[in-house]
Amino acid sequence: MKAGIYQMKPLFGKKEANLRKAETVISNLKCDLIALPELFSTGYSFISKAELGNYAEQIPGGNTTEFLVELACKNSCYIAAGLAEIENDDLYNTAVFIGPHGFIGKYRKLHLFYKEKFIFKAGNLPLQIFNMEGIKVSLIICFDWIYPEVCRSVALKGAHIVIHPSNLLKPWAQMAMRIRSVENRIFTMIANRVGVESRSGERLKFSGRSQISDPKGEILLSFPKAREAFACVDIDPAVANDKLFTPHNHLFNDRKPLMYDL
Amino acid sequence: MKAGIYQMKPLFGKKEANLRKAETVISNLKCDLIALPELFSTGYSFISKAELGNYAEQIPGGNTTEFLVELACKNSCYIAAGLAEIENDDLYNTAVFIGPHGFIGKYRKLHLFYKEKFIFKAGNLPLQIFNMEGIKVSLIICFDWIYPEVCRSVALKGAHIVIHPSNLLKPWAQMAMRIRSVENRIFTMIANRVGVESRSGERLKFSGRSQISDPKGEILLSFPKAREAFACVDIDPAVANDKLFTPHNHLFNDRKPLMYDL
Repeated sequence: MKAGIYQMKPLFGKKEANLRKAETVISNLKCDLIALPELFSTGYSFISKAELGNYAEQIPGGNTTEFLVELACKNSCYIAAGLAEIENDDLYNTAVFIGPHGFIGKYRKLHLFYKEKFIFKAGNLPLQIFNMEGIKVSLIICFDWIYPEVCRSVALKGAHIVIHPSNLLKPWAQMAMRIRSVENRIFTMIANRVGVESRSGERLKFSGRSQISDPKGEILLSFPKAREAFACVDIDPAVANDKLFTPHNHLFNDRKPLMYDL
Repeated sequence: MKAGIYQMKPLFGKKEANLRKAETVISNLKCDLIALPELFSTGYSFISKAELGNYAEQIPGGNTTEFLVELACKNSCYIAAGLAEIENDDLYNTAVFIGPHGFIGKYRKLHLFYKEKFIFKAGNLPLQIFNMEGIKVSLIICFDWIYPEVCRSVALKGAHIVIHPSNLLKPWAQMAMRIRSVENRIFTMIANRVGVESRSGERLKFSGRSQISDPKGEILLSFPKAREAFACVDIDPAVANDKLFTPHNHLFNDRKPLMYDL
């Protein structure tokens, strides 16, 4: 299958323009699976709940989700993307998984980064596996990378591919996700953004370098740090079923949960 | 404090010579804490329990441990080192922690690598914290690196420094231990070996590149891949008390154990 990433530069607050950008790339890229960044349709630097509330949507049912559903249907592909969710009065930093036959599921970011804590509510849904025609896909979002428990949890549930929509600033996630691939023998896909947002005195420069790592930690795709980019690569998700690091080391069966204090 | 590593090339089966090599380096290096590789006193490639049984020792009480106790006393330092242990008829791949006033404790490798499983019994002691005058030190051994649960467990118990005596062959542990430092905000010290052992048709080339990473993942010390080396650096273990990745992200308090399936 072809797995792709759109390393996008969302325009802050310009939802319609961002959806069009995504449409153009997805229609041209011809992937089976494509990952977009965290908060791809709105940008990142919201300064209050009130401000973000004007942009957040219901999931499913909101415009952005419906737009992605149509796009996935039209292009016969699966799409993972991050967007702002509203449910009652609560705002979540959410990622959706959508297939050619419609909305499949969502994940709400468990580990909020920095000032996101003032705006978003932390995720309250279980870490999940989504079914892509037998391939097990899971979603994590941005700062979740630093918690090895996250990828471990979904890998133990059978994830072949962990998709990681991000708005990364710091340089560590690329190395960490490579190690998440190695320690769990899974594919990992970072869909990071690029560009700069300057709001309320804080200048955020997003760090790009989106990547796909295979279950042995090899980098299959790697993007530059400061430019929009999109591409896809052929992957065989079944490779992630093999947890043998050596003929005598099955990484999951050799765990010693009774000896860990977690 | 000064933390050091001796990236050693043990001579297979030449215990007396290996102890003398360690003595020479430790006496010259003048560290507060020095780490030696896994199985430093015997070499690695034992082909049977019977063969290893001739070299394994009681811990404490065996010659190698007693030798290290004297060395630590004479040089007023702490020593972490890997050696083969025998208890009743069981053999363990063990690491000891020894201070200027004697034997402090031991750790038995939990995750045996490859054919080690045919010779050693897997560790059956809890992951532990050893006290070095208020600094909390923990030991893990070689292939334990691939299990994020190991460093996480000892970091949650308060470890400032994780010492990692190793006989590494593959190239991933250096990157992984750097990430262990970042995700746990701890110092990590890989004490790997160099050299080649060819026994019973298998040629093992050990990969060197010993390193010390600080709690932000910066490399403080890094050795070449194929030569013996020793050096020490100044570290401030108290830095590892600070688990704030940002002013709003305490890495341990922000964990969501109820959401993990481990």
